[in-house]
Amino acid sequence: MTSIPASLPLRNDLIGEEPYGAPQLDVPVCLNVNENPYPLDEQVADSIARRVREVAQTLNRYPDREHVQLRQAFCDYLAHESGTRLGVEQLWGANGSNEIMLQIFQAFGGPGRTALGCDPTYSMYPEYARDTFTEWKVIHRRDDFTIDLDATLEGIADIRPSIVLLTSPNNPTGTNLPLEDVRTLLDACGRIQVAGAAEGTHPVVVIDEAYVEFRNPGTPSAVSLIPAYRNLAVSRTMSKAFAFAGARVGYLAADRGIVDCLRIVRMPYHLSAITQASALAAFEHTDLQLRRVAKLRETRDETAAWLKRQRYHGASLQVADSESNFLLFGKFDDRQKVFDMLLDRGILIRVVGPDHWLRVCMGTDEEMAAFRSAFTEVLSQIDD
Amino acid sequence: MTSIPASLPLRNDLIGEEPYGAPQLDVPVCLNVNENPYPLDEQVADSIARRVREVAQTLNRYPDREHVQLRQAFCDYLAHESGTRLGVEQLWGANGSNEIMLQIFQAFGGPGRTALGCDPTYSMYPEYARDTFTEWKVIHRRDDFTIDLDATLEGIADIRPSIVLLTSPNNPTGTNLPLEDVRTLLDACGRIQVAGAAEGTHPVVVIDEAYVEFRNPGTPSAVSLIPAYRNLAVSRTMSKAFAFAGARVGYLAADRGIVDCLRIVRMPYHLSAITQASALAAFEHTDLQLRRVAKLRETRDETAAWLKRQRYHGASLQVADSESNFLLFGKFDDRQKVFDMLLDRGILIRVVGPDHWLRVCMGTDEEMAAFRSAFTEVLSQIDD
Repeated sequence: MTSIPASLPLRNDLIGEEPYGAPQLDVPVCLNVNENPYPLDEQVADSIARRVREVAQTLNRYPDREHVQLRQAFCDYLAHESGTRLGVEQLWGANGSNEIMLQIFQAFGGPGRTALGCDPTYSMYPEYARDTFTEWKVIHRRDDFTIDLDATLEGIADIRPSIVLLTSPNNPTGTNLPLEDVRTLLDACGRIQVAGAAEGTHPVVVIDEAYVEFRNPGTPSAVSLIPAYRNLAVSRTMSKAFAFAGARVGYLAADRGIVDCLRIVRMPYHLSAITQASALAAFEHTDLQLRRVAKLRETRDETAAWLKRQRYHGASLQVADSESNFLLFGKFDDRQKVFDMLLDRGILIRVVGPDHWLRVCMGTDEEMAAFRSAFTEVLSQIDD
Repeated sequence: MTSIPASLPLRNDLIGEEPYGAPQLDVPVCLNVNENPYPLDEQVADSIARRVREVAQTLNRYPDREHVQLRQAFCDYLAHESGTRLGVEQLWGANGSNEIMLQIFQAFGGPGRTALGCDPTYSMYPEYARDTFTEWKVIHRRDDFTIDLDATLEGIADIRPSIVLLTSPNNPTGTNLPLEDVRTLLDACGRIQVAGAAEGTHPVVVIDEAYVEFRNPGTPSAVSLIPAYRNLAVSRTMSKAFAFAGARVGYLAADRGIVDCLRIVRMPYHLSAITQASALAAFEHTDLQLRRVAKLRETRDETAAWLKRQRYHGASLQVADSESNFLLFGKFDDRQKVFDMLLDRGILIRVVGPDHWLRVCMGTDEEMAAFRSAFTEVLSQIDD
């Protein structure tokens, strides 16, 4: 809780707001923030320490503001992961994809500008908008959480947003956004004049692929469309599949022009020499960092099947189709009660997304066993 | 240079802007960005690597969002450095004091709000204002670069800013701001109603003490006023005297209410676990990190005396009184020419601040000898 004296000139629209973020509780099983539950291998940790030691004596100097080596590593990783090779000038890093998104909103948003998304979606988007005085508008997804393409196209034509922000796989639903839809949206945006911007400008389409490494085999990444579309940006992060949340490294792939716009609004020296060194070390071990991804995908599919077999008030539970490392499941008359009863049993999940639904992320086998056992108990008590 | 296609809806007020920052050139002697020129000791580097290794295997998890251990280290350091002991809830860290300032502007600035400073001053301030749609106004300093207290008080009463941002020692002039003036300004602000803000709000007074460890013995820090003033915030950094620019750690000391306002606008998990670990390691060796500060102060005083003895077009050079690790000197008919001629000789200084002046920061003895030798040559060529 905050305690803000009335004498402080906090922005009027922030009065009464609380800091964003899931509760950080000391609980045995944390399945609330979509982390990769597997600790890093000893040899990756050794490489990180070695690389940090190599730069440590030069920390009296500022870091490479353009983080060129790291941007090269993003290129190489994306070529490997998505099959599309971009140039170093098409990549850009920041302290988490949060900061990437903030820079996008700082460059292309602002008073008189609107960003458009499809809800339910990531709950930070309205915060980026609020922090940059950008209007945030949403088109509702269908009942199965896929986007309503026609309604979205209509919304874009009506609103003429400067930013169209879509998430694939979507958080908190796990829903994939088909590449054909991305292409349709990009083509439509190429015919739209942005409201409140200079003549001849079109919306920037941002695809947030934070969880994309968890997608099903054969599902393509929007990175493959970058060579064809100058107004497309794809945001990525090392926090999820790559098991690097604590290091705070997000990145963007886009046409060089978009990267140049972010360079105008970025803080100088925003990425520390230690962050750059650590990320380079982790990229030395890409296969090790990603080796649990297939396992987590299996865990997700098994957990989805298991949840669908559970019964709540006499009916089967629903589980949203997920290509991510989490599952949205419901519906519960009182989701807070289910959350609290799980928490009492040492299991922390997340109250997020549409009403009546809860989100759980995939843990280790032991953590998932604990979750299933606690949830079984909760359901049987509720149905008593 | 940037290359931004006309189809991108870059914010109208950013069109034509270039990314902020001193040129990063590969030059033998860099005296341009006010770094501490002495590399870190082996044992500090070892501690950093050890602390990073300790957290490296848990990097799959998000860091402590509230960075409590690090805030405790800031408290302890400030108690040691300034003589004032604050509570952990009165400290707040971020990726460089740049990010601290951005958060201040995000919390207290915005459309319809004004921030007030005294120029010439740090050239990033207008950028924070621009990035948050805050108006930036300045009161001119006197010819000796001290603030004009009466004009500043008048400006505050007229403008009723939400942020009064003053720098001590000031960058790029090195000028100290007397604590009595800070107190006078704070008292005056306590009687001012902020324009465009709720009834009963007063300006936040921010003292940027990035270079404060270089002040002359006996000069107090504004941190000592925090217990008495709820609207005072003091910004600090580990980048300068503390020789930690590459790690990007800035912090703020203020009443808890101000910290709570920043918590609303900060990005969740803005400070990585690696940054937190590295800074904690550096604070284990505070005396080692600061051991060149007295030496740099001497270098400054010697260099100032030497510069004053140099003659340009038949007159002695002027040097602004500095309590920092840099010197503003002039005046030159064509400062760019002097800068370029020094650069030709492998010496990078900075074209910044009022016209006709140049800024040089203090390097090692070898670097300063190279600077003096090159500058002597430049002056004699110009006077030929």
